[in-house]
Amino acid sequence: MAPTAETLTAERILEATEEVLRRHGPAKATVVDVARALGVSHGTVYRHFRTKAALREAVTKRWLDRTSEALAGIAAGDRAPEERLRAWFTGLFEAKRRKAGGDPELFATYSVLTGENGAAVGEHIDDLTAQLTRIVRAGTDSGAFTAADPAATARALFHATGRFHDPCYAGEWQQPGIEDEFTAVLDLLLRGLRA
Amino acid sequence: MAPTAETLTAERILEATEEVLRRHGPAKATVVDVARALGVSHGTVYRHFRTKAALREAVTKRWLDRTSEALAGIAAGDRAPEERLRAWFTGLFEAKRRKAGGDPELFATYSVLTGENGAAVGEHIDDLTAQLTRIVRAGTDSGAFTAADPAATARALFHATGRFHDPCYAGEWQQPGIEDEFTAVLDLLLRGLRA
Repeated sequence: MAPTAETLTAERILEATEEVLRRHGPAKATVVDVARALGVSHGTVYRHFRTKAALREAVTKRWLDRTSEALAGIAAGDRAPEERLRAWFTGLFEAKRRKAGGDPELFATYSVLTGENGAAVGEHIDDLTAQLTRIVRAGTDSGAFTAADPAATARALFHATGRFHDPCYAGEWQQPGIEDEFTAVLDLLLRGLRA
Repeated sequence: MAPTAETLTAERILEATEEVLRRHGPAKATVVDVARALGVSHGTVYRHFRTKAALREAVTKRWLDRTSEALAGIAAGDRAPEERLRAWFTGLFEAKRRKAGGDPELFATYSVLTGENGAAVGEHIDDLTAQLTRIVRAGTDSGAFTAADPAATARALFHATGRFHDPCYAGEWQQPGIEDEFTAVLDLLLRGLRA
């Protein structure tokens, strides 16, 4: 049943937007397509998102948030800091690979959208490095890690592992040997962190 | 004075090819353009490079080799391994930044060419990681570093520093703070290497 202007939620619009982007591609998808998919007028969509740019930014943020939310639970967990850090990076790499390999067209679509929405990407990276900082700080508190500035160390860890989460490397993620490369980098970084 | 078929060297052709690529861009540059720039027939160019693809591959290799040759001296030096590793990565980052920032059009041209010539890029990365392996091995020999498999550790170091040499990050290399990010990553990796 088509939603009415009263029952239509922002989340429902974002779901439909993702579907429209998947079908038409980021260059051609319009707000009218989204409204048509929902069976409402485009004015109703604009009541939730004031501009096409705002709608695209919100759908990009939703896509990025899916990854951060999945990792927040690991960061907040009570496993030993080293084990937690390993689980967190493994989770990040797996989530990115799944997104890139499981639905390459949608991944390519979001690569265009993240290119347009630098602020949303910046916030996403801030979210992720804040989670990492929490783990590094747990390690310095327990005496397992040495890090004079946990936030700076968290950023260094994030930068040093770019090969395993930055979309510019998506083409490498299905290559043989990538798992060993991931483990070698993580082992070296963890050795560097240990007190 | 225009070279004759007898005095024309491969190096002279590659110089002219780079100039033609810079002027016409990688999509439009032809072997005829190169021959015209040299004042010879295109047959004379083909005597040195049998196909347009071979010429493009050779000019790509020459561009990549300029970086590896500049670093080879550092790798083969006799400074302490840790200092040598730091100088090597600093040299690599500086060379890449200079290439990207000093002549952005030529850098963009070579980004297209490296995309076409995966084998030349693979050899270049093998060259660089062989240099790194030499430094890591000097460190394990002297007892300064711990690394069970110096070649694997060299690859891990190369992968962990991609943000500071991989062309996909060229847009970040002039950002404020990038020097501190570089130092933070390198410090962490060196801590991980120390015996």
